[in-house]
Amino acid sequence: MSAGLWSRSIESLAPDLRSRRVSPVDLTEAVLERIRQHDGMLKSYVHVADGALEAAWEAEREIRNGHWRGPLHGIPVGVKDNYTARDMPTFAGTTAPGFSFPRKDSNAVARLRAAGAVLTGKTRMHEFAWGTVTPPTCNPWDVNRVVGGSSGGSGAAVMAGLAVAALGSDTGGSIRIPASICGTVGLKPTFGRVGRSGIVPHTWSLDTAGPLTRTVADAALILNVLAGADPGDPSCANRPVPDYAASLGQPVRHLSVGVCRNHFFDRNQDDVSNAVERAVSDLASQGMTVREFRIPALEYGLGAIFAVELPSSTAYHDVSLRNGRTGHFEPDVRTLVEVGRFVTGVDYLKGEQLRRVLMDDFRRVFSEVDVIVAPTTALTAWRHDATTLEIAGEQESVLAASWRLTYPFNLTGLPSISLPCGFDRDGMPIGMQVAAKPFDELTALRVAHAYERTHDWVSERPTL
Amino acid sequence: MSAGLWSRSIESLAPDLRSRRVSPVDLTEAVLERIRQHDGMLKSYVHVADGALEAAWEAEREIRNGHWRGPLHGIPVGVKDNYTARDMPTFAGTTAPGFSFPRKDSNAVARLRAAGAVLTGKTRMHEFAWGTVTPPTCNPWDVNRVVGGSSGGSGAAVMAGLAVAALGSDTGGSIRIPASICGTVGLKPTFGRVGRSGIVPHTWSLDTAGPLTRTVADAALILNVLAGADPGDPSCANRPVPDYAASLGQPVRHLSVGVCRNHFFDRNQDDVSNAVERAVSDLASQGMTVREFRIPALEYGLGAIFAVELPSSTAYHDVSLRNGRTGHFEPDVRTLVEVGRFVTGVDYLKGEQLRRVLMDDFRRVFSEVDVIVAPTTALTAWRHDATTLEIAGEQESVLAASWRLTYPFNLTGLPSISLPCGFDRDGMPIGMQVAAKPFDELTALRVAHAYERTHDWVSERPTL
Repeated sequence: MSAGLWSRSIESLAPDLRSRRVSPVDLTEAVLERIRQHDGMLKSYVHVADGALEAAWEAEREIRNGHWRGPLHGIPVGVKDNYTARDMPTFAGTTAPGFSFPRKDSNAVARLRAAGAVLTGKTRMHEFAWGTVTPPTCNPWDVNRVVGGSSGGSGAAVMAGLAVAALGSDTGGSIRIPASICGTVGLKPTFGRVGRSGIVPHTWSLDTAGPLTRTVADAALILNVLAGADPGDPSCANRPVPDYAASLGQPVRHLSVGVCRNHFFDRNQDDVSNAVERAVSDLASQGMTVREFRIPALEYGLGAIFAVELPSSTAYHDVSLRNGRTGHFEPDVRTLVEVGRFVTGVDYLKGEQLRRVLMDDFRRVFSEVDVIVAPTTALTAWRHDATTLEIAGEQESVLAASWRLTYPFNLTGLPSISLPCGFDRDGMPIGMQVAAKPFDELTALRVAHAYERTHDWVSERPTL
Repeated sequence: MSAGLWSRSIESLAPDLRSRRVSPVDLTEAVLERIRQHDGMLKSYVHVADGALEAAWEAEREIRNGHWRGPLHGIPVGVKDNYTARDMPTFAGTTAPGFSFPRKDSNAVARLRAAGAVLTGKTRMHEFAWGTVTPPTCNPWDVNRVVGGSSGGSGAAVMAGLAVAALGSDTGGSIRIPASICGTVGLKPTFGRVGRSGIVPHTWSLDTAGPLTRTVADAALILNVLAGADPGDPSCANRPVPDYAASLGQPVRHLSVGVCRNHFFDRNQDDVSNAVERAVSDLASQGMTVREFRIPALEYGLGAIFAVELPSSTAYHDVSLRNGRTGHFEPDVRTLVEVGRFVTGVDYLKGEQLRRVLMDDFRRVFSEVDVIVAPTTALTAWRHDATTLEIAGEQESVLAASWRLTYPFNLTGLPSISLPCGFDRDGMPIGMQVAAKPFDELTALRVAHAYERTHDWVSERPTL
């Protein structure tokens, strides 16, 4: 077993796996050993796959026999616990009794398997994806702090080398928040770009599926496999899938960056705003034009996303409410699911109307800019015991503060990639997001990649 | 002024207008004279256009100068009172104070005008399109009976020669119900086929715009003009518009007709079911294959359409509710708007979920049939004073009974055309509808036309 294999990216591993300089079995063993050593503390997995090593051996055989499936072949990938799989249990983050999810590959899991990925297990998530904490998972940078959520286990596992990449899902920020808090890359594709069949639903009109990875190129490589039609998801688009990895590295100097001066910079930790301002300057110094703008209607965004998410989640849990099973949910999630009963249809529709207004507002902005750059989270990793936080002199609930900068791209369905852009005074990673036009993940990835190339934050991996 | 001009169809008038055998001015004067003579009793208009005769003179000049705009040039067309127009007031069927709708051409009105149609006025509708009665409009076949609704004025005007055709809108049946009750043709296109900008909304996810006409070909000619992109309506499809009139008359013997044996035949007046059964036999005798099927989930349709329409309408009227203006609404409409406040977001979403189930069910049926034929309304024109009706031995509210067979095609967004298929024992017209796959208005029109050619019900026009 080669030391440090577990710390490498897909883009660095794939050529070595293909040329047999690295063995999928060695790589998988290294990752499984990391899990054995560190997951007792990190708690990033709820289930470690029995079949991982067998899948690695199969990958090794296939590659040896000249059947290389592509860049994911032999790569250990974690699966968020709300994706069903034929050979792993699904809990969707709950310990409540009476749930039984199918033992059947979800669309994304089937696609990963077909691409030769080695599934390492199910990563921990906030119960039913209704929160941004993912207890009790610990942050690899400081185990006294949270990992964010709801795909928190994926964030911790990817950061700490307990998976090379992992699946997440993002309804209001659940891929990008743990990516930001843990210091990984996280890509929320355009609504409808990746099929969601086999994912336990939160809010059908907002849920998206995507990866958490170590590098921007890794996110592109996984999107190449995940994107495209899904007959089981009527919201999934049927449009062509470009090669997202192929154009990374092309110059970005003719592109323009939009910076939204309201909402996204109203109330952040200083270190967060400063890091993102520096990142925008760095992109400008690469030749990109910077344009500032404001979207006043974002003021109503929190009400809108609650008005949409609460009844949508509650509709899903309707049976559980009626048979009393929500009494076994964690108190925070139980409250949200029960409160959702009191949101009226009119409230819901007004939330949907604001989404349309925001879509039009962002469409106008995107007629003048290619990407929007913003902080991913207003704050860095917070301590496990915090339920409210003081940010810029105001007390806020963790939930309200943590998704404030991510949910605008859920309301509008726009693609957004989060990537590390520095560290705060406590050494906690800071994330910034790059959003683009609908189905223009390519440009978001290119700009993120251009930034990443000149800032190797990822190599500052915590040494557990 | 030629006697009887007012009774002719667009398809018969257009060649004569083009060749100047018929003058648009004579035609318009004949229609306006019908309005003067009969609308005191019928009450099909709420506003007669000041500019109709001037527009007719303009059409006459243009045609004389060789600028023939197409088959609608010089045709007098009524406009349902929920479409805004630059030169006519809009009331959306209400007499409540404080409403002020724009004096601006709606998408459909602008398209009709550009096609050279002569707009005759605004036709009466059920208040805010929330009902199927359209009081106090009287049915031309028996003035003691209603015209249906909500586009009741359009139905009465087209039937009685007070317009050659008219616009309607259809959220749960509001084009097809008055077409059926009055004995005209009524076409509800696929959701998204005709742009709705400038129509006072009822339920944004269900509202559709379309014509009431005397013949199937007339509906095709108007759809040719109405269909296509509408930048003001984000739900409007951008796909190509075929020539809906061109293929009418082609053989239908290779097509198959589906007949849904539950829901659509569960509880109809005998004369209605019998007339539609005969029509299906007639289509079979033209060589069409008949396949029977069942869609059990239709049992939940009434709950679903109420769960969607009530809060949607109430969201539109939210300001009126808050400022007390709903107190000036008619009692039936006020009740619906106020009840809509108590529909939960969960109810709304479950309604939307049933829509998806029904869409899948109908998609499966349409993999085996080309069209579905069904009665349009379970009953024929009822008396003005009826609020409940006995049908097949059961008492039902007028609203529940009158849209039972139309709302399935709103929930599913499918195109459906209603056309006359006989008379009941009291001499009241019976309507049947022909529904087709999404955006396949062409096939629905072809089958309806094939039936119409062999059954000249329309010539049995009432002689007011």
